[in-house]
Amino acid sequence: MFTFSCPVSFSITCSSSNGNIQNHGDYRVNINVNGSSCTRRPIKHHTLLNEGVKEGSTSLSAIQFLENGHISEEKIRQRIPRQKQLVDPYRQGLITERGVGYRQTVVVRSYEVGPDKTATLESLLNLFQETALNHVWMSGLLSNGFGATHGMMRNNLIWVVSRMHVQVDHYPIWGEVIEIDTWVGASGKNGMRRDWVIRSQATGSTYARATSTWVMMNEQTRRLSKMPDEVRDEISPWFIQKQAINEAVPDKIVKLDDKAKHVNSDLKPKRSDLDMNQHVNNVKYVRWMLETIPDKFLERHQLSSIILEYRRECGSSEVVQSLCQPDEDESFANGVQQNLLTNKVLVGENGRLGSLDINVLTYGYTHLLQTQNEEIVRGRTRWNRKICTGL
Amino acid sequence: MFTFSCPVSFSITCSSSNGNIQNHGDYRVNINVNGSSCTRRPIKHHTLLNEGVKEGSTSLSAIQFLENGHISEEKIRQRIPRQKQLVDPYRQGLITERGVGYRQTVVVRSYEVGPDKTATLESLLNLFQETALNHVWMSGLLSNGFGATHGMMRNNLIWVVSRMHVQVDHYPIWGEVIEIDTWVGASGKNGMRRDWVIRSQATGSTYARATSTWVMMNEQTRRLSKMPDEVRDEISPWFIQKQAINEAVPDKIVKLDDKAKHVNSDLKPKRSDLDMNQHVNNVKYVRWMLETIPDKFLERHQLSSIILEYRRECGSSEVVQSLCQPDEDESFANGVQQNLLTNKVLVGENGRLGSLDINVLTYGYTHLLQTQNEEIVRGRTRWNRKICTGL
Repeated sequence: MFTFSCPVSFSITCSSSNGNIQNHGDYRVNINVNGSSCTRRPIKHHTLLNEGVKEGSTSLSAIQFLENGHISEEKIRQRIPRQKQLVDPYRQGLITERGVGYRQTVVVRSYEVGPDKTATLESLLNLFQETALNHVWMSGLLSNGFGATHGMMRNNLIWVVSRMHVQVDHYPIWGEVIEIDTWVGASGKNGMRRDWVIRSQATGSTYARATSTWVMMNEQTRRLSKMPDEVRDEISPWFIQKQAINEAVPDKIVKLDDKAKHVNSDLKPKRSDLDMNQHVNNVKYVRWMLETIPDKFLERHQLSSIILEYRRECGSSEVVQSLCQPDEDESFANGVQQNLLTNKVLVGENGRLGSLDINVLTYGYTHLLQTQNEEIVRGRTRWNRKICTGL
Repeated sequence: MFTFSCPVSFSITCSSSNGNIQNHGDYRVNINVNGSSCTRRPIKHHTLLNEGVKEGSTSLSAIQFLENGHISEEKIRQRIPRQKQLVDPYRQGLITERGVGYRQTVVVRSYEVGPDKTATLESLLNLFQETALNHVWMSGLLSNGFGATHGMMRNNLIWVVSRMHVQVDHYPIWGEVIEIDTWVGASGKNGMRRDWVIRSQATGSTYARATSTWVMMNEQTRRLSKMPDEVRDEISPWFIQKQAINEAVPDKIVKLDDKAKHVNSDLKPKRSDLDMNQHVNNVKYVRWMLETIPDKFLERHQLSSIILEYRRECGSSEVVQSLCQPDEDESFANGVQQNLLTNKVLVGENGRLGSLDINVLTYGYTHLLQTQNEEIVRGRTRWNRKICTGL
């Protein structure tokens, strides 16, 4: 049994549908709420015990290297399960969708929101990454890589994203409780689709949806790889057909050239932009893309959708150029005057289109990140006028 | 009673020491783990009900503005409590220290770690901010500002940090469960001290400690303010004397000038660097400071402490210069050769200091962020050689 219990005021008790949880450790913790004392039992890892780590091993002073399987203190601290788990009380996660989906309850944190107190797109993308990894974590398939399964590890394979499509209807706000559902499906012979839905925990309203496509890359050669049978055997039992976004005819994204209206050159990845795969993280790409859009436009508009098509990875020493091209003349977008009383807008400074409902106005940008004319990622964004929220 | 129950596999039940929780809402949620259906009861806010919002109001299509107290849908979504709470099941937080401290259990997320899989300093600073705000959240004192109390709101006051000192002994790693304790104390007549301790949840080992000093600023005039009596009455019952770091004689930080060895000029805040107070967030300052240290040094060393002295706030349109000066010659630090077998190092390329235990070697930098010769923040950092972790 997973048990996290506080004798005075806080207890979480979880049991699986059949009463037996295939647990990986003993999580009992006793906390005196009045703060005068804490007693904690050292973690016990049955799997690790079988691999040669002493029961109750809690030393933090030295990193342990054992040659028989690289058992290190890292494993004790991370506690990655080797078997499927149904609930994760620390991450507030649980397995859904008849045993193959994952749901995590998350509170939007103060540093995940922008000046308007709504979660930034970057924060949503970070949470997508986080819940995807936690889904693999719960599955018992996670090796020590960045979402890679044991079979992938044996074949020196890592996941790389080839496409991502995010639609945001409502941005969650600071302190709001949201539920993020994620699941995976087949994508061609060698790929995997991963989808997400973000909902309000309180009302169940859908705030955002996303879908993505992933392929495997050899970590050494950096070339894309077929999916080995042993990996397919690991992950295909988790595939379901449900799709978060219906993409019958996916948008094509044209390639921009040097004539693009807005160009940011000389973008250099910093150490803090690298992730566990030693890559420039995808979220950084999106930041570079959006920073190329004029501030005046960003202040008045909110992103409603983004499509990203990844072409190749970006190393830490490369210099990147970000191009973007608006579908329409931005002075048109910026000239729109909103009438708060009627919820209508006067379109254009000369009012040439007259009055329109604010909800029908959307704007589009095409994006490209490249390095010395080699494409890294193409993008398309759609934007709505911000509605005055008083936040 | 707070109740978050999942009929099949997940339940959290909390009760206060006297059996009565001063609850602010009804959080009952039923989730069918098999994913076939979800039932959620709309949130009911008794406080909000008294203020005129209809029971069960869940519309997301329009932001509601009522003139009698600015009740908006935002409040319903945020659910900021008006009365002290003892537990927060969503944030995994609870009141400690005989009713005045706060503890939150947190899992280190995938995007909070660097390429070496350990949490970045920025992530720790973000978590300090988050837990501080959640402490105020639980206290029932939080108005709608960025940690400001109701009394501060009435006086147009916001918090600004004047000093921060962080010591890190161990960086938590990806997926690790940590406990963050935070509490407040008096600091002179008009200030407040806030401290934090980060511990391993599994073993109780202390990973990091921090202390900070806060003062109040008038939001309109941007001038520092005395603490009004009504604000002192709100917060002083929460003060305790315990200190996370013993700072009998605080370090003085010298002011750097243009002769500093490393200078990054032309740093410009971006929209994504602004926080809810429309400030450049403190965490961004730290990033600018650390990015001025040569990469070669950063690759081999890990920050063990940082002291920040804030002089004035930085607006969004200012251009910032980051200066830093090493205590020693960096070629000395970079020339150190580590012998993994003996855990000793050969110091200096010519071995002039012979062999030393790796743990005794620390390095220091002095930092300054300024704008046109007006100081924003002074800093001091201390660094240890990284020990090969195999991560």
